[in-house]
Amino acid sequence: MSIGIFDSGFGGLTVLKEMIATFPEESFIYLGDTARLPYGTKSPDVIRRYLEQNIAFLQKHSVDAIVVACNSASSVLTEEEQFGVPIYGVIAPGAKAAVQSTLSQKIGVIGTRATVEGGAYVRAIHQLDKEIKIFQQACPLLVPLVEEGLEEDPLTNLITYRYLSPLLGTGIDTLVLGCTHYPMLRKAVKKVVGANVKLVDSAEPVAEQMRKDLEAGLWTLKKSESPHFKIFASDAGSCFKAVADKILAPLKVPNIEAVDIVS
Amino acid sequence: MSIGIFDSGFGGLTVLKEMIATFPEESFIYLGDTARLPYGTKSPDVIRRYLEQNIAFLQKHSVDAIVVACNSASSVLTEEEQFGVPIYGVIAPGAKAAVQSTLSQKIGVIGTRATVEGGAYVRAIHQLDKEIKIFQQACPLLVPLVEEGLEEDPLTNLITYRYLSPLLGTGIDTLVLGCTHYPMLRKAVKKVVGANVKLVDSAEPVAEQMRKDLEAGLWTLKKSESPHFKIFASDAGSCFKAVADKILAPLKVPNIEAVDIVS
Repeated sequence: MSIGIFDSGFGGLTVLKEMIATFPEESFIYLGDTARLPYGTKSPDVIRRYLEQNIAFLQKHSVDAIVVACNSASSVLTEEEQFGVPIYGVIAPGAKAAVQSTLSQKIGVIGTRATVEGGAYVRAIHQLDKEIKIFQQACPLLVPLVEEGLEEDPLTNLITYRYLSPLLGTGIDTLVLGCTHYPMLRKAVKKVVGANVKLVDSAEPVAEQMRKDLEAGLWTLKKSESPHFKIFASDAGSCFKAVADKILAPLKVPNIEAVDIVS
Repeated sequence: MSIGIFDSGFGGLTVLKEMIATFPEESFIYLGDTARLPYGTKSPDVIRRYLEQNIAFLQKHSVDAIVVACNSASSVLTEEEQFGVPIYGVIAPGAKAAVQSTLSQKIGVIGTRATVEGGAYVRAIHQLDKEIKIFQQACPLLVPLVEEGLEEDPLTNLITYRYLSPLLGTGIDTLVLGCTHYPMLRKAVKKVVGANVKLVDSAEPVAEQMRKDLEAGLWTLKKSESPHFKIFASDAGSCFKAVADKILAPLKVPNIEAVDIVS
C-alpha cells in the first residue's frame, strides 16, 4: 500500500519530495502524464477526463490516498467527490496557507489559464475569509519556460515581470504560486514582487493537511514494509529522469516506467 | 469522399487553407488534436501512437487521402508505409521546395525539438542533393508564443532573435519553417534573417505535390457533390474557433465538433 501522486508532468515532483519528508516510512507511486501535458491550456472537460483516468490508474496500484499534485487538475475536483480513496487537491491547502500568511488581507494568485479562469483559489480563499481581496493573474508562458530549463534566464525575468507587474501596487503581501512548476521560479518571482511579499506554494501545506487528517483518523495508511517510490510517465522518452534527479536530489531516483494511461 | 488533414492543433489550418485553394471542388475533414498538443516536445514513440490514432480516426470518415499537416508527426512517418489510403507528410514537399530555392547550397531548418532531433528534413534534403549544407535549430518556445497570440509582440522578436542568430553568417539563403505554426511568425523571422533569406513552408508545396500526383494517376479523388469542410478537435473548448476564423478568413468556418480520438 502506498500514496499515489500525479501531475501533468514533473512539477508535482516538488510535492512528492515534501510527501517523502512528511511520511518517511511510506511508499509512493508518482504518475507524470507527460504524453498529454500541459493541462493548464486545456478545457475543464478535457482536464476532468484526464483526472479521472489518472485516478483510475493509481487505484489499480491499491493506493491508500491520492494527491492531485497539479493545480489545473485540482481546480476541476469538487470537495464532495467520492473515489473510494481520499483524494487531496493542492488548492484548498494552498489557499489555507495563504489566508494564514496575509496581514494586508490582499492575496495574489498566479497560475495556468485553466486554474485562474476556473476560479478555484478564489472560492477556496473566500470560503475561509470572505473579506480578503484576491488579485489573479494567468501566466501561460511560465510552464514552457520551466520545461525548457530557463528558470535563471533573463528572458524568464522579463516574462515574469510582464505577468506580475499588474500585481505591484495592489497591496498584496502574499502570492500563491498556483502551479506546481512555479516553485522553480521563486527567484524570478521574488525579483519582481520584492522580499516583502510572501510566496506560498502547496507542497508543504498539502503534506501537512494529510498528516493532520491521518492523526485525526480521517484516513488510514497501511505502513510499507520497505518504503520506496516508483515513478511512471505516459511519455518516458523525454528528459524526465534528469529533471526528477534535479528536483528530488539527494534522493536516488529509480528508473521511470513508461505507461499508456488510456489503454 | 474527401481529403483528411490533421495537426496537433490549429497550425495545420494554414495547410487546409492552401488545400481548399488547390482543390476547390473537394470536401475536407480537419482534425486538431488539441487535447494532447503540443507534439513537438514529445518522444517519437508517443508521437507515432498519436499519428496512428489520428489516421484511424480520419479513415473512419472514408477519406481519399490524408495530409499529416504537422511536421513533428510527419517526422515519424516513413515513406514506404501503407495505410490503405495515400498519406502525405509535409517534410518531403518542404524539403523539395527548399532545394529548388537555394543557390548558396546552404539551407536553414527551424522546427520543434522532435522535428529537429528526428533529422527528417536533413534526410529529405540530402536525398535530393547530398552536397547541400544544412543548419538546424530547434525553437521550442515559438509554438507557445503563437498559441498565446503573441506573433507581433517584442517578446517574440527577442526569442526569435535568440533562436535564429546562430544561423546568421552561415550563408543560408533559404530557411525552412519546419512547423505549421511558424508561417504565423514570418514577420518576426524576417526581422532576424533579413530580406535575402527566402522562407519556405510546406503548405503550398504539399498541395502542389498532391495535385501533380493526382494528375499522374498516383491516387484518385471521388469528387464531392457539394464541397465543404468539417473541423474536429479533441479539445473544442479553447479559442480554437476564433483562431480558425482568423487563419481561414475569408472562408466561413463551421462549428468545431468535439471528438474523443482514443475511445
